[in-house]
Amino acid sequence: MEQLEPISRMVAELSHLPGIGQKTAQRLAYHIASMPLEEVRNLATALWQGRKSIRYCEVCGNYTVSEQCEICSRSERHNGQICVVRDPRDVIAMERMHDYHGLYHVLHGTLSPLDGIGPNDIHIKELMDRIEKEPPDEIILATSPDIEGEATATYLARLIKPKGIRVTRIAHGLPVGLDIEYADEVTLSKAMSGRTAM
Amino acid sequence: MEQLEPISRMVAELSHLPGIGQKTAQRLAYHIASMPLEEVRNLATALWQGRKSIRYCEVCGNYTVSEQCEICSRSERHNGQICVVRDPRDVIAMERMHDYHGLYHVLHGTLSPLDGIGPNDIHIKELMDRIEKEPPDEIILATSPDIEGEATATYLARLIKPKGIRVTRIAHGLPVGLDIEYADEVTLSKAMSGRTAM
Repeated sequence: MEQLEPISRMVAELSHLPGIGQKTAQRLAYHIASMPLEEVRNLATALWQGRKSIRYCEVCGNYTVSEQCEICSRSERHNGQICVVRDPRDVIAMERMHDYHGLYHVLHGTLSPLDGIGPNDIHIKELMDRIEKEPPDEIILATSPDIEGEATATYLARLIKPKGIRVTRIAHGLPVGLDIEYADEVTLSKAMSGRTAM
Repeated sequence: MEQLEPISRMVAELSHLPGIGQKTAQRLAYHIASMPLEEVRNLATALWQGRKSIRYCEVCGNYTVSEQCEICSRSERHNGQICVVRDPRDVIAMERMHDYHGLYHVLHGTLSPLDGIGPNDIHIKELMDRIEKEPPDEIILATSPDIEGEATATYLARLIKPKGIRVTRIAHGLPVGLDIEYADEVTLSKAMSGRTAM
């Protein structure tokens, strides 16, 4: 017996999702086939209606259900600072620290020539237009400290600094709680070169 | 900023799936939010339409899109044998060996008093009705060799044997390719007690 066509189609669609291989997709598909109709409807509706209702904030590119995201539309946010991040998940992470009161700009990716992702494939033009219209005091580059994140930060710094805007990069160093013994060399060297006076 | 409501709903629904925790659900939800509309539509449709089109075979309880499953509706299958399995995935596994030509009966679960699953919660009545209507020569109990599987097999054997039908249990022993050194004691003891003449 071949696998039923509806199950094969579920497997095909599910296995497109990140981290879901053929085996997991199959397990999920068989589980979904055995779920009450009502629950599957809720799942499918949540995915489709959810996706349909989500769009990019017209200012910063963060996810939103209206024109502007919750952060851009809040007047108490300090609009002299723009923190540039790779994707909306990073905004959530930054907001969790309850310590930053400026605005964001979501790039939706980082430069990665090997994957064919150049400056026009991520929201750099939107950032430059935004800076042009209303120049901030500071741009904080908060892309990850990996090759793509560093390349993107360097690229942006070179683009923005000539406009006389202060450009900063989040600090690299030892994560809190990590024993020096277990730190990798690059992190340790970044921590050394970024040392501050006590 | 709180998580967007549509994303929270996706996370809630996705985390109901087996093996998908809060973190994975969140990663998936953010990925789905960034997927092209068309792809999300395909995913949601595959799940919902797929689930809607799948029902239980009226004879054996296997998944099907018509009244009877592919196996029950095929005339060349030997209907003197019924192989009893826990769920439709087991049918696929059995069919992969291309060696069994009888019919199946899918229980949709195994007895598990601790989880409150008794004889009326799985398709035992359907099996008994089927045996009553058209008694087979042999019932092969192919539930897994775990506590629930064994309990279910014992329960069914006690129910069916008095009807004069041959009841067999699939063999337990060393899986092919496993070094004896690495076999657990229970498997090894089953392999010893189930030894056959050469």
